[in-house]
This record gives sequence, C-alpha cells and structure tokens, in this order.
Amino acid sequence: MNRIADISPGQFLEEELLRTIPLTRAMQLRVQEFTGVGLELRAPLLPNVNDKGCAFGGSMASLMTLACWGLARLALRERDFEPDIYVQDSQIEYLAPVWGDLAVRALAAPGPTLADFVDMYAQRGKARITLLASIDWDGQTAARMHARFVAKRRQEYTE
Amino acid sequence: MNRIADISPGQFLEEELLRTIPLTRAMQLRVQEFTGVGLELRAPLLPNVNDKGCAFGGSMASLMTLACWGLARLALRERDFEPDIYVQDSQIEYLAPVWGDLAVRALAAPGPTLADFVDMYAQRGKARITLLASIDWDGQTAARMHARFVAKRRQEYTE
Repeated sequence: MNRIADISPGQFLEEELLRTIPLTRAMQLRVQEFTGVGLELRAPLLPNVNDKGCAFGGSMASLMTLACWGLARLALRERDFEPDIYVQDSQIEYLAPVWGDLAVRALAAPGPTLADFVDMYAQRGKARITLLASIDWDGQTAARMHARFVAKRRQEYTE
Repeated sequence: MNRIADISPGQFLEEELLRTIPLTRAMQLRVQEFTGVGLELRAPLLPNVNDKGCAFGGSMASLMTLACWGLARLALRERDFEPDIYVQDSQIEYLAPVWGDLAVRALAAPGPTLADFVDMYAQRGKARITLLASIDWDGQTAARMHARFVAKRRQEYTE
C-alpha cells in the first residue's frame, strides 16, 4: 500500500486545497470531517475577520463554496473519478453575524443524491448537482448557500 | 486641511479594506477607480488562483461583494455618513473561467439609485439597495453578482 492510500479522504482534500488554492492558506482552512454524504470545514475567525470584527462575508462565501466543491470532489474520488469540478451559480443568505471561529457544513440538496451525481458522471462523463452549505453560530443558522456544480472530464488548459 | 482630506475616496477605501479585512491583503486587492456611481477593484491572478490555474470562485465572490460594499461605503461617506453596511443576500453566476488578473466593477441595479439610497439613509437611519458586480475577461462577462446591502446606524459591538 502506498503512502497516498494511508491518508483519509478529509486529509487528502485538505492537503489538496491548501496546496492548490493560496486563499485557503490565508483563511487557515481545515477539513474537519467527511462522512460520505456530508463535509465539514473549519477556519478560525482571526484571518477571516471584517471591519466590524465579525466574520467577513467573502470568507463565508469562499468557505461555503469550498465545502460544496470538496464534497463533490470526494464523492467522485471514492469511485476513482478525477474530473474538473466547477461552481456554476450560487445563492447566499447572510442571516446573522458570526463572532467566532467558522464551521461550515455541506450536503446535497433535496433531489438527486451524491450517489446519483456520481452515477450520472460514470455514464455520461458529465454531471450536475445542487449542494447546500451552511454556517451555524450561537445555535442558529448564520449563513446558507445553495449552489449548482458541474463535473466534466478533465481537459488540458492553456492560458 | 488635514491629511485625511488629501487622499481620494478610492485611496481611503483601499487603505480601510487592507487594514481591516486580512483576506483583502491575501488577495492583493487594489481600488482602481470610484466615479461616484461605480467602483472598480483589481487583484492579480496569482494569489487568487484555483486548482485549475484560473481564478478561484471564492476570490471572485469576495471581490464582487467587496466592490459592492465599497461602492455603498463611498456613496454614504460622500455625505459624511458612516453607518454599518452589511450584505444581506447575493446571487452569483459563474459564466466562464478567468485566466488573468481580475477587474471587478460594481454599480447600482436598475431601480433605486445610490443617491436614493443615501437619501433614504439620511431620512430613516436605515436603507437598502440592490447592487450589481461583474468580472469581464477576454471580451465577455465571466461572472456577475447581484446582492442586497443594508446600511444601519453604527452600533457598539461586544463579542
């Protein structure tokens, strides 16, 4: 067994995000847990603060987008698929300020499941899914997002 | 004339954002231009890149949110108002990848103008406005956002 196989999916994702997306290092992102149907990310308040001393909306938007992206990434990777994954659109509601460290949870929206999404990708080489993310603070939902993601067979990129 | 009065609104906003929101330093945000009815922000690609080598969706969401926030901030500040300004909700469409430096423009959505927004704040101590932001790349719109912002008289915060 090689060394890559020894790390958990969550550790794999955290290493990948921190290595490939500089802003995740600035946000001090951590992958807390991947359950197969959900993903939780965390980030401390201090590097993600705004002018008012609570969490910056841009950090919350970024972390919710990354939680959904990471969930799609790991669901596909469980069946050895490595497509490109894009966010297509998103709607965010900011409901209350967050005065502490951020915990962000993502899961599939009602409707097609992550398993359906991976099956569709396996059949067609392309698939879409709507995912939900939320940030709780002090016993209530402080922000929530729903967003559509697309997985497509990987292409070679040129500038 | 004191030193504060010598700097342009754009310079004031850039200094404030870079000082109060650490993520703007990580994104290397610059305020390019404030026209009174529009605001343009810029950021280089390198600190805002994703796993595919193009611009990270979280950076685009953050910069579009900041462009709108900054536009509301400067419109109110022109009439010496310094309220708290919050993003309430946002919808983003990601239309095409961006393979270069980011230029983000914000302006008011059709309907109430920035002047209406400031008038309403002057009358009621609270006002709402819908703002639009977009990122162009290679002659087309690569991402666009519309978002609602609220201005409210400043409060003292406690953790």
